[in-house]
Amino acid sequence: MGGDNAPRMVLRGANIARKRYPDAEFMLFGDEAKLRPPMRRLPFLRKACSIYHTDEVIADDTKPSQALRSGRHSSMRKAIDAVRKGEAQGLVSAGNTGALMAMSKVVLKALPGIDRPAMASFFPTLKGESVMLDLGANIECSAKNLVQFAVMGELFARTVLGRLQPTVGLLNVGSEEIKGIDSVKEAASLLRSGHGMNFQGFIEGDDIAAGTVDVVVTDGFSGNIALKAAEGTARLYSEFLRQAFKTSVVAGIGYLLSRRALNKLRKRVDPRRYNGAVFLGVNGVSVKSHGGSDAFGFATAIGVAVDMARNGFVDNMKREFETPAAAEPPKARAAAG
Amino acid sequence: MGGDNAPRMVLRGANIARKRYPDAEFMLFGDEAKLRPPMRRLPFLRKACSIYHTDEVIADDTKPSQALRSGRHSSMRKAIDAVRKGEAQGLVSAGNTGALMAMSKVVLKALPGIDRPAMASFFPTLKGESVMLDLGANIECSAKNLVQFAVMGELFARTVLGRLQPTVGLLNVGSEEIKGIDSVKEAASLLRSGHGMNFQGFIEGDDIAAGTVDVVVTDGFSGNIALKAAEGTARLYSEFLRQAFKTSVVAGIGYLLSRRALNKLRKRVDPRRYNGAVFLGVNGVSVKSHGGSDAFGFATAIGVAVDMARNGFVDNMKREFETPAAAEPPKARAAAG
Repeated sequence: MGGDNAPRMVLRGANIARKRYPDAEFMLFGDEAKLRPPMRRLPFLRKACSIYHTDEVIADDTKPSQALRSGRHSSMRKAIDAVRKGEAQGLVSAGNTGALMAMSKVVLKALPGIDRPAMASFFPTLKGESVMLDLGANIECSAKNLVQFAVMGELFARTVLGRLQPTVGLLNVGSEEIKGIDSVKEAASLLRSGHGMNFQGFIEGDDIAAGTVDVVVTDGFSGNIALKAAEGTARLYSEFLRQAFKTSVVAGIGYLLSRRALNKLRKRVDPRRYNGAVFLGVNGVSVKSHGGSDAFGFATAIGVAVDMARNGFVDNMKREFETPAAAEPPKARAAAG
Repeated sequence: MGGDNAPRMVLRGANIARKRYPDAEFMLFGDEAKLRPPMRRLPFLRKACSIYHTDEVIADDTKPSQALRSGRHSSMRKAIDAVRKGEAQGLVSAGNTGALMAMSKVVLKALPGIDRPAMASFFPTLKGESVMLDLGANIECSAKNLVQFAVMGELFARTVLGRLQPTVGLLNVGSEEIKGIDSVKEAASLLRSGHGMNFQGFIEGDDIAAGTVDVVVTDGFSGNIALKAAEGTARLYSEFLRQAFKTSVVAGIGYLLSRRALNKLRKRVDPRRYNGAVFLGVNGVSVKSHGGSDAFGFATAIGVAVDMARNGFVDNMKREFETPAAAEPPKARAAAG
């Protein structure tokens, strides 16, 4: 029931996703009276869904703590409960991000060895696609948190993006060793001294879109700002491009001739193709769709959840953090030994 | 002598700037043997410059502390000294950023009432131009630092961008009051309760390019990452656009017809038009050009220094920080009273 155009957008998105994943089944949580009518026109979805009625909804401005206290019968909470009970293999919501993170954390619980689950998303780069985390779940992060983000992101790149040996970089303000916040510098030395991943050291903001690494690791404050700064710049560029074609008749004809090519460009940077931020580190698949997404974008977010469920992402994560190399920074292990 | 193509690029840039500012005079610090030959072809500059010979140069990989200790006879240091002595009204360098900031701070000194000078730059937005600070001079910042950045940035927007009542925003991860780092939240409440500026509260990463405010205030870590993330995205978009026009003959013809319009777009986002990061809060005008800039970009950076010198920016800043409203957060004043 969450998002700007729910539940219609959500239903249409599920219909598209069902076409793509013919063996997927959907549990829909929400107001039955609002869900039934639009479903008549959605043949793929109709065959493969069951409705679980609730008329409670977490509003966009509900604080996470409030959602936890009084949102037990909300559509969002019921979807999370279904994942906890194993009735669903994953959940997708376009609703209140803070509430979704808080409820996912409390209901699904963090996996053993993970102190702070993190929000991750993938995005287009000059070389293809990369993943970045954290995007806002943890405003301030210790070196240990950052190391765990690196391990989670690396597994995500292997499992969902299909990279064999994903490269990992720590976002910083300079590539020299001397620069940056203490926690970032400490995380770099921990990652260098163990964890067996393809760690590339520090990267800078412009390396994100360049695709210098497959996995960009940062705290939730910088990650959120970097992601949104990039989104804003893409929007600025699109708007300037649109205006440029309007400056003359000749340019207008040029636009008509290049339209097909420009549509390809649009498709490459289409945010709907990168919809679906994943809440990594909890015991279950929890995916956040952009609230303003349309059905096509929501289907992408569902696809992320399906991929993670099919690839046994959560079980892989459990295994990853069972080995002490990933769960504990080498220093701590040395001290314990 | 700093930058990728120095000193030729610097000299050609000064030549362009001299055409634009016919009453500007240049003091050139560097190796006379390298400066003389290219100058023969630069008629505007030749009439208006004097060379101060030194064969010492701060290398790109010199650490700031090392530059301070052993760079007393370097071209960069001598240019800063000229500003300190009042022989020059401002300096522009394309060299080592860390060294330039450290030497500007130690030689020119922070203005009374300013704890930490900050790096600021302006950039294109949907609404025109905005300024952001800090861009990397201060990795970790207190609420008081952020408030001082806001005051400095607001003055810069008034003096250099010509805004009458610049709007100011604090970069954060959400617009709700509850979110964000303590120092950012505290800075917001300080700015709300005084300082007489047009403070708009929190903004997010996508507000930067949207031009939601004239002055974006943030710590040097997030600011540096946001600026470079935006630069990287602009480069990605340009590259995708270039590739799109190459996909077919028709698109190629479309490109030819739209070329003039696309050049306008290119001009609007041309980083050379936004070259020149300013080190605000020191007792003198110190401008950093991008190291990879060409002569056109370097001329822009010189233009920023000229504008600041002409508008008496540093004197305005001194006056601004003499009034207790700007120099001290209201809380501290209340405690003192």
